[in-house]
Amino acid sequence: MTTLVGNVLIAQGGGPTAVINQSLVGIILEARKNTEIEKIYGAKYGIKGVLNEDLLDLTEISVDNLELVACTPSSALGSVRDRPDEEYCKKMFEVMKKHNIIYFFLIGGNDGATVCNILNEEAKKQNYELHILHVPKTIDNDLAITDHTPGFGSAAKFIASAFRGVNFDNASLPGVYIGVVMGRHAGFLTASSILGKKEESDGPHLIYTPERDFEIHHFVKDVKNVYEKYGRCIVAVSEGITDADGVPIAAKLAKQIEHDAHGNVQLSGCGFLGDLLADTIKNSTNISRVRVDTFGYLQRSFAGCVSETDAKEAREVGMQAVMFAMSGDVDGSVSIKRVSDYEVEYELVHLSEVAGKTKIMPDEFFISNNMVSEKFIEYVKPLVGELPEVAKLKAAEVSKIK
Amino acid sequence: MTTLVGNVLIAQGGGPTAVINQSLVGIILEARKNTEIEKIYGAKYGIKGVLNEDLLDLTEISVDNLELVACTPSSALGSVRDRPDEEYCKKMFEVMKKHNIIYFFLIGGNDGATVCNILNEEAKKQNYELHILHVPKTIDNDLAITDHTPGFGSAAKFIASAFRGVNFDNASLPGVYIGVVMGRHAGFLTASSILGKKEESDGPHLIYTPERDFEIHHFVKDVKNVYEKYGRCIVAVSEGITDADGVPIAAKLAKQIEHDAHGNVQLSGCGFLGDLLADTIKNSTNISRVRVDTFGYLQRSFAGCVSETDAKEAREVGMQAVMFAMSGDVDGSVSIKRVSDYEVEYELVHLSEVAGKTKIMPDEFFISNNMVSEKFIEYVKPLVGELPEVAKLKAAEVSKIK
Repeated sequence: MTTLVGNVLIAQGGGPTAVINQSLVGIILEARKNTEIEKIYGAKYGIKGVLNEDLLDLTEISVDNLELVACTPSSALGSVRDRPDEEYCKKMFEVMKKHNIIYFFLIGGNDGATVCNILNEEAKKQNYELHILHVPKTIDNDLAITDHTPGFGSAAKFIASAFRGVNFDNASLPGVYIGVVMGRHAGFLTASSILGKKEESDGPHLIYTPERDFEIHHFVKDVKNVYEKYGRCIVAVSEGITDADGVPIAAKLAKQIEHDAHGNVQLSGCGFLGDLLADTIKNSTNISRVRVDTFGYLQRSFAGCVSETDAKEAREVGMQAVMFAMSGDVDGSVSIKRVSDYEVEYELVHLSEVAGKTKIMPDEFFISNNMVSEKFIEYVKPLVGELPEVAKLKAAEVSKIK
Repeated sequence: MTTLVGNVLIAQGGGPTAVINQSLVGIILEARKNTEIEKIYGAKYGIKGVLNEDLLDLTEISVDNLELVACTPSSALGSVRDRPDEEYCKKMFEVMKKHNIIYFFLIGGNDGATVCNILNEEAKKQNYELHILHVPKTIDNDLAITDHTPGFGSAAKFIASAFRGVNFDNASLPGVYIGVVMGRHAGFLTASSILGKKEESDGPHLIYTPERDFEIHHFVKDVKNVYEKYGRCIVAVSEGITDADGVPIAAKLAKQIEHDAHGNVQLSGCGFLGDLLADTIKNSTNISRVRVDTFGYLQRSFAGCVSETDAKEAREVGMQAVMFAMSGDVDGSVSIKRVSDYEVEYELVHLSEVAGKTKIMPDEFFISNNMVSEKFIEYVKPLVGELPEVAKLKAAEVSKIK
């Protein structure tokens, strides 16, 4: 079996992660080992950079620079959310052919896999012998087939560290605390808040994800119950929670407020869902201290919050993608298979198996509508690694003196 | 000079910090060295715990437990925001006298110093020989006299790390990013975002604090200018920004929206100011991608984001407070004096010099209404310490092929 001689093009797509550049560097350093590869190019701002022929030459960047970039959050090449049609693909191919690209690596999530699949179909139609490798990344962990996605572990570490901290903050000034976590369809990230918990009385006490219907009156009741038991309540909630009819809770609560005030409430603000949930608790209970945070972009880009396992695997999926590409006439998506507790292997799966599919949390990861299971904890723990150690004071109460 | 023999009582007050328990542990371990001190008590939930005689015995807690608690964010004893009147003080003293308290340590901020001052005046009136030591803490860094406050450095590290990360996030998916930072009167924390910046083109590009009047039309113009120059713009803004008349910007923008929609917009949501600023940019420019985060409680309690200098000094102010207390008939607030770049000494200052006073950023820390000075960077850098290293790709552009 002979491999082609030509150039490599790498692009990054979709939302950045804390370790997506590990994959970029993994591809570059592995590609350099292959004499069949002459040049290694990067597309600026994803596939849009291919379209516009905005390319960077990565062939000879120093390893020192690469290793620093690998530790830098977010997509070093720039990103984009374009979805190419036939015309878009055609233009991309014109540019790629001019630069003798025979291997195209796209580091991306669901949408990235879809783009790879579209490109692959189009390349076949056009008899362009292009090998397309999808290198997985997404903090949402919602990619099909793979056990988990690079980027998720570090974001989950951020979420767990945040809840570990706010648990103590809320314990010292008791009340209700709601943390709104990214995740429109899958709740893996929100569910990871559970790792912040050490003791039964610690938060998060309630976890709501998009996989389970969210009923506002149940939510109020749940919070009341926890508050009665512990004198406080910490809630982790996904931005994408919906009711039984699939209506986003943010839209539903906004409607109620709109109706009350005859006003025009915008849904766009990212703090919106949290504020509405907090107002709901304030208006439906006699709990006065209700606080809310929407974690926003920090959860995917905070400098210095990286899971070692995640960083290592993000590097490896990049390296593996090159090895798969060099192994013959293949296209596909690199998938992570968990083979023991804790070891992984890498497989190449068909692009069509990943493209356009969204994985959500399976039933066994829940014990109820508002709490995750031990199975989920076992699943997520090795991906996140060690968290900062914390402790309560082990002090005895002093007897009151009459 | 003879010192009294009796017991110590420690309380924590106000908003927690990442290192406030270092001060608690500093007091406990230093107090244990003194044979004149028999028992070391802690008040649960601040001075309310004194009022209610809810005390913990800290005399013999293991050093292992204490050292773990020292690294745990938030107030291990619990906190409160009560402001005692004469009656409250009287009841506190009754409890304290019963337990033979002769040294009272309150770890707190501005309000804590005020409480200490009130207690001190009342103790004098009642001829209660109680020594009151205020041990400084606040993430806002707005305490009078002291060069800086324990708790600030770690929160500033969180802010700087957050902006270091979102700078790269925003570079990969360009647009406007607004980060809303804690600080009602002083902008030290918001200004610390500048440490996230490495190169001229990096964010934050604009920094707005309560010390400078915030004009909405200037803000829009500033953002437009930066966006034209760099194709993106990162803004750090304090929650407490006001206009020239001292009107909070959140209230002002809300009024405009209220007027537009004849609706009833609540000011309470913590994401409110950010959402309004983002809407203002969207409505006043043709920039489509505008994102906003309100950092919220994470900035003071995130587990794992601690400045080493801050942790060390938080421990030392606790220890120093005990040493001052044991040095004779004194009351006061422990103050940090910067003696060189970078070394500090500790002084005891009168409670009245700190109580009820708010320090804001001096003029020399600004170069304009929207940017801080080199002087500020020199001031804040040693307090925060090293940040995670990051880098851009050093890659050459590839020539376009005709």
